[in-house]
Amino acid sequence: MNPKIVVELQNIVGESCVFTDEDTRKNYGHDETEDYNFPPQVVVKPKTPEEISAIMKLATQNKIPVTPIGAKTGLSGGALSIYGGIGLSMERFNSIIEVDDKNLQVIVEPGVITQVLKDAVAEKGLFYPVDPSSLGSCFIGGNIAENSGGARAVKYGVTKDYVLNLEVVLPNGEIIWTGANTLKNSTGYNLTQLMVGSEGTLGIITKIVLKLIPKVTHTILMLVPFYKAEQACEAVSAIFRAGIVPSALEFMERDAIDWTMKFVEGVSVPIKEEVQAHLLIEVDGNYPEVLFQEAEKITEVLEQFEIDEVLFADTEDQKNALWKLRRAVGEAVKSNSVYKEEDTVVPRYALPILLKGVKDAGKKYGFHTVCYGHAGDGNLHINIVKGDMSDENWITEVPKGIVEIFELTVQLKGTLSGEHGIGYVQKDYMPLAFNTAELNLMKGIKKLFDPLGILNPGKILNM
Amino acid sequence: MNPKIVVELQNIVGESCVFTDEDTRKNYGHDETEDYNFPPQVVVKPKTPEEISAIMKLATQNKIPVTPIGAKTGLSGGALSIYGGIGLSMERFNSIIEVDDKNLQVIVEPGVITQVLKDAVAEKGLFYPVDPSSLGSCFIGGNIAENSGGARAVKYGVTKDYVLNLEVVLPNGEIIWTGANTLKNSTGYNLTQLMVGSEGTLGIITKIVLKLIPKVTHTILMLVPFYKAEQACEAVSAIFRAGIVPSALEFMERDAIDWTMKFVEGVSVPIKEEVQAHLLIEVDGNYPEVLFQEAEKITEVLEQFEIDEVLFADTEDQKNALWKLRRAVGEAVKSNSVYKEEDTVVPRYALPILLKGVKDAGKKYGFHTVCYGHAGDGNLHINIVKGDMSDENWITEVPKGIVEIFELTVQLKGTLSGEHGIGYVQKDYMPLAFNTAELNLMKGIKKLFDPLGILNPGKILNM
Repeated sequence: MNPKIVVELQNIVGESCVFTDEDTRKNYGHDETEDYNFPPQVVVKPKTPEEISAIMKLATQNKIPVTPIGAKTGLSGGALSIYGGIGLSMERFNSIIEVDDKNLQVIVEPGVITQVLKDAVAEKGLFYPVDPSSLGSCFIGGNIAENSGGARAVKYGVTKDYVLNLEVVLPNGEIIWTGANTLKNSTGYNLTQLMVGSEGTLGIITKIVLKLIPKVTHTILMLVPFYKAEQACEAVSAIFRAGIVPSALEFMERDAIDWTMKFVEGVSVPIKEEVQAHLLIEVDGNYPEVLFQEAEKITEVLEQFEIDEVLFADTEDQKNALWKLRRAVGEAVKSNSVYKEEDTVVPRYALPILLKGVKDAGKKYGFHTVCYGHAGDGNLHINIVKGDMSDENWITEVPKGIVEIFELTVQLKGTLSGEHGIGYVQKDYMPLAFNTAELNLMKGIKKLFDPLGILNPGKILNM
Repeated sequence: MNPKIVVELQNIVGESCVFTDEDTRKNYGHDETEDYNFPPQVVVKPKTPEEISAIMKLATQNKIPVTPIGAKTGLSGGALSIYGGIGLSMERFNSIIEVDDKNLQVIVEPGVITQVLKDAVAEKGLFYPVDPSSLGSCFIGGNIAENSGGARAVKYGVTKDYVLNLEVVLPNGEIIWTGANTLKNSTGYNLTQLMVGSEGTLGIITKIVLKLIPKVTHTILMLVPFYKAEQACEAVSAIFRAGIVPSALEFMERDAIDWTMKFVEGVSVPIKEEVQAHLLIEVDGNYPEVLFQEAEKITEVLEQFEIDEVLFADTEDQKNALWKLRRAVGEAVKSNSVYKEEDTVVPRYALPILLKGVKDAGKKYGFHTVCYGHAGDGNLHINIVKGDMSDENWITEVPKGIVEIFELTVQLKGTLSGEHGIGYVQKDYMPLAFNTAELNLMKGIKKLFDPLGILNPGKILNM
């Protein structure tokens, strides 16, 4: 990095917020995606949209790549500085500007941890329902960049469903608002939803207006053991067809729950040997008597499948323990072996077909998979674990299997990523989901926002 | 229109589906926007995406404007053939392709009437909740083009919240799908939501995949008379802050309800002279006992305001009568006088300020307004009625008032249109809502999709 650029960056954000030492650069060179590390040449920690605007003007003049970096919890490599350049850490954008309980909205900066935001609005009797598994460490800005989902999406929707308006710094340094702070909007093209899920490739989000809903007071949580994994997937659709919209409907294969119980202390559930998979089912609402009726309806639906005894979480502690178990699956699998994770999503009735296809691909190409995820949304996280597979097969055979899994996903009217994004690791597979005309439109949008290709280059699209 | 073009159009769709007679052209030259009529030079009624693709290739070669036309119920002039050319009627795209009760989805063509769609999914126990007031005559494709709302948006969201995937013919004739048939999607830029609300300016929608929800079985509907119109607006926000999300929360000024009772036969409600406005409030759900509790909570909230006796609709007939009354307000106002309608939307707590601002602008510039709308969403329909105002003042003074109303709207963090779109009649006001950088992005998107500017020219943006 040209030392003159470093000095100019120091002039913009102050010397104490510019870092060129190797440790810092390496620390900002990774997220939670496999074991990748692409360090930026310089890490900058701005505090205001105006500072980011100045940085982007400098980057534009000098054609320097800029990669926005959030909490580094991403699973598709969106925050990796593939081409070096400036790593733009958003960690100092950490204010909750206003919890507006009159309009049920919150204005927040992107570097606020999702759980902190949820707690702050809960204090005013409000509810921000989106809860990615990393909610204790991820940033709300990153959630918007990736259009994060999570367990409650099945009832409450994903991040995009709560974003009303965004302040964004464009690659050329201009500052815009994408919409208005309203629940309805038919005024021009929807720039807000173009920004959500664009993985930091179109602009840098600096303020966020989110819709909130009134708090929900009661939940019932149950863990259901299935003797056949595919029947667990079938039950998902059956519950909805009975007219019930659970607030969570999570699927875990046997390995996922076993590995996680070993990984997380103090969480243990007795499981019979023959059990292949579990569903974790939650209903929520403000009227306990209604929840009991819904839970009863669900157990009636479940009776048509081969299940073991349903475990109801009786106390808050038991509920927290089950959620802790579910949320730690990703990390548990990661700790167990080198792995690759796919984030496939299909219409929920197609889940059993997808699961069978994943296992078939594994048999064909010699890899083991551990599957779990948000079954209510048809969103299956497929962890391909290396285990004792040879390095050669890992490199040559696994990608063939991934292509087959993605082809099946698309054939089932699904797509590559439900909530983790395409980022760096999935971009070569985009032509499996989109034809040339579709990809050309996306490339055209990228060029419109970022004609020099300096903002988060090397992500989503090969161009 | 060059006769050779007419012949080529006949070759594409068949002679019986091409019209050049004046009556047909005039009939396809209007929608429900004031008294505008901009007839196309030729009306074409294609049946398949491939036919539309061929028409767009022909239009591209010959630089002929093409205006997509739905049910002609629009309120912003989106379907007017401002520059003549080809009027592309979508009325033959009238099939419900599949009601998928396993995945809670429906695949539908754009020319299906919204109520027909709602009825078809209801037969399978499913619910498509979006209900614009024109639901008995508007097309689902038009709803998507304008991102229509309606009374139930306050609880269930607007059209965009149900659109999963779209088949679209681009201006150059290419056929694309915008996404996947999934509830979650983090795979590339959100072309689906870019298309929703783009008012037929980016592409022609030919197939639609919508999300559905399980049916809801019970409602309670009440009509609440307020002695002060601004208190009715204040009550809206108070109901939400009490933790209740009504399924409808509609506001009607005194004139709106009086004029409508005269206009619609068989619907009459006794109203005291001092009553200035009404709220029509609905709660819905599957558990009647819960609805009674919610209705009781609402009446408790209402006690803090100056209201007359609440009218509960006891029977389905009474409910239908009240909804008929509410839905006919627009037509009733229209039948009463020459008028202009604004579709302002603000955060709901700002409604009383907006209402006062509207009345102040009316006093200042000498016009009378009748206001009503979806108060739960902060969406106020402002009907400026000509009455006995002079033609000169109508032309010179009213636009000044509209500018002031829009400026106030934007200052309140709201925007120009909540659900009717910008179309032809509001496009000159767009710079009140967006800065140059924002408008340039929108213009860039239009150029990317439609470099020759042949698709629905003269709408949304001045370019």
